[in-house]
Amino acid sequence: MMGKSRLEAFSDGVLAIIITIMVLEMKVPPGPEFSTLVPLLPVFLSYVLSFVYIGIYWNNHHHMLHTLAHVNGRILWANLHLLFWLSLFPLATGWMGQNHFAQGPTALYGGVLLMAAIAYGLLQRAIIVSQGRDSLLARAVGGDLKGKLSPVLYAVAILATFVAAWLAQALYVLVALLWLVPDRRIERLLAQP
Amino acid sequence: MMGKSRLEAFSDGVLAIIITIMVLEMKVPPGPEFSTLVPLLPVFLSYVLSFVYIGIYWNNHHHMLHTLAHVNGRILWANLHLLFWLSLFPLATGWMGQNHFAQGPTALYGGVLLMAAIAYGLLQRAIIVSQGRDSLLARAVGGDLKGKLSPVLYAVAILATFVAAWLAQALYVLVALLWLVPDRRIERLLAQP
Amino acid sequence: MMGKSRLEAFSDGVLAIIITIMVLEMKVPPGPEFSTLVPLLPVFLSYVLSFVYIGIYWNNHHHMLHTLAHVNGRILWANLHLLFWLSLFPLATGWMGQNHFAQGPTALYGGVLLMAAIAYGLLQRAIIVSQGRDSLLARAVGGDLKGKLSPVLYAVAILATFVAAWLAQALYVLVALLWLVPDRRIERLLAQP
Amino acid sequence: MMGKSRLEAFSDGVLAIIITIMVLEMKVPPGPEFSTLVPLLPVFLSYVLSFVYIGIYWNNHHHMLHTLAHVNGRILWANLHLLFWLSLFPLATGWMGQNHFAQGPTALYGGVLLMAAIAYGLLQRAIIVSQGRDSLLARAVGGDLKGKLSPVLYAVAILATFVAAWLAQALYVLVALLWLVPDRRIERLLAQP
Repeated sequence: MMGKSRLEAFSDGVLAIIITIMVLEMKVPPGPEFSTLVPLLPVFLSYVLSFVYIGIYWNNHHHMLHTLAHVNGRILWANLHLLFWLSLFPLATGWMGQNHFAQGPTALYGGVLLMAAIAYGLLQRAIIVSQGRDSLLARAVGGDLKGKLSPVLYAVAILATFVAAWLAQALYVLVALLWLVPDRRIERLLAQP
Repeated sequence: MMGKSRLEAFSDGVLAIIITIMVLEMKVPPGPEFSTLVPLLPVFLSYVLSFVYIGIYWNNHHHMLHTLAHVNGRILWANLHLLFWLSLFPLATGWMGQNHFAQGPTALYGGVLLMAAIAYGLLQRAIIVSQGRDSLLARAVGGDLKGKLSPVLYAVAILATFVAAWLAQALYVLVALLWLVPDRRIERLLAQP
Repeated sequence: MMGKSRLEAFSDGVLAIIITIMVLEMKVPPGPEFSTLVPLLPVFLSYVLSFVYIGIYWNNHHHMLHTLAHVNGRILWANLHLLFWLSLFPLATGWMGQNHFAQGPTALYGGVLLMAAIAYGLLQRAIIVSQGRDSLLARAVGGDLKGKLSPVLYAVAILATFVAAWLAQALYVLVALLWLVPDRRIERLLAQP
Repeated sequence: MMGKSRLEAFSDGVLAIIITIMVLEMKVPPGPEFSTLVPLLPVFLSYVLSFVYIGIYWNNHHHMLHTLAHVNGRILWANLHLLFWLSLFPLATGWMGQNHFAQGPTALYGGVLLMAAIAYGLLQRAIIVSQGRDSLLARAVGGDLKGKLSPVLYAVAILATFVAAWLAQALYVLVALLWLVPDRRIERLLAQP
């Protein structure tokens, strides 16, 4: 049993790097005219979406680990597993942006979102198991509708790319909006005496 | 309500990465002669300016969060919003430097400065709201002349690029000099018994 | 004699960056078709292997330093020496992946694994020396079979590349699996009263 | 007056990134043969030298800040000034390595070393001023022979590049060896009752 401070520090480091190196996919345009920025626009939009997603993960990770006192091996690896999928964001983001939100890259982006959501769920379960079914986190997430709905919506979005890529993108934005409010369930419980 | 340590750690990480990856825009020159360094000079100068700006933001962020005890969702997102605009510094810096401070890139650089200044103001307001109008920070920033003047000067600078790019650059340097002194107002108040 | 917090923070930072910049070796593919992802597959597989290895090092580093109260110069440098070899992971991983696990790159990858394992052993020894033969860590690692076996297996794997590269790769995966369980010996001892 | 924890965290972050992105200057070689590694050898050697230098700076920074209780604006900026010059290490290292330790790049590398040494001295002075002439650090550094000798040796090395580049490189290695022992003066004083 060990403290969680290094787990948080390491996760913060990885998330900070992921969120920042995504910006490197926006290559400095060759000329000084504003028109050279136009091809960057889809890359910029995909960057904004991914920035928001990493921000959501950081916020929720922040909240979830707040309830955690000790880490064990399973939690350490569940956390690394989550970081692995999040580390693919720069690649998926760059591919989607540089190909103007084409079908294939949009589907791959959804795949990364899906795997990250599953990994987050596994980490949440690992923490609940280590704390007992009666723990603060277990009560806080409760039925965990958002947590269960998100992977389903990502899967639907991936299938939707066969119809139209923009359908999938709209779903990605929708799920992001659903999560933009940080996990107030935990905040609320913590505020109770 | 949660502690601010992870907010600080994450922000420090992102700022440390931004300030460091800007240096990657200065590509290693192809030959061993000093003359191959000459084209790097404008990139170097824009790097120095951006390094100072990120340093200013880190210092003031450091001071502002010092007065903060608890973070809420609004503060978390206001902080991420600030980091988003700061994350565009490497791109804006590289574009301005590689095009020898041409008009368009100089205006875009000003746009990033302007958005970051607005985001900083929003974060400051979010913190003051969470602490109450009577808080340490609220009293410390007072009329906040510098905070209100900076966005105006950036906007003026953007317009000035239509006249001459160097006018805008001079304004960017001027505002940086204004801020180079860290926010002594907070230091002074904290030093009071 | 100084605290270990900055040693941990610096190591976490370096490991977080190493694990994240490896992903930059997977260049965004040029076209939007899934077929353009195929050449990335070996790079992806080598990325997964290296991600797991860095994760193992981080976990075990985490556990080992947990038993440490004070750092001295020897520990500081033994730690930097370990980080040096780990910092070569992105290069070795990229070379192995981009050459489809060819013989030479596979051998070099093993060389980096071997040097990192030796460096980890030296760091462990430096900590035990500083704490005395009777310390918690000394008792926890005991005969340290895994620690002694790993470099041998890496050396065997390097030689095995002369026969077939996949033999070496199988050994790399095997050693990773051996280590995937975090060092429960220390956990167990710490759990004792 | 504020605590030093964020100053340490930010500096650790920047130093961790600098030490790690230098490895990106060693581009993955195009082919799978060991012969393709040969052109990397000078880049590797310059990487080793710079890794050791950043390690020395991190260690000494670690020791120096250990004696520090509070930071003021001057210390914050002296620290950023030091980080600025250290941030040029990847560029100077890459240029020197990729040009096989030619005269010009060797001189520039010395220039970066010289400026970093001066910046370190300024930071040391800022800390001593803030603590008073009688402080722990003031007594610990005493005459500070190494600190005064290093910039002189760097300057000599830069001049020596006009005779032969290897002379300068030998001096860089020599100064690194002088510093490789962490600042035991401070360790010794701290160990006193």
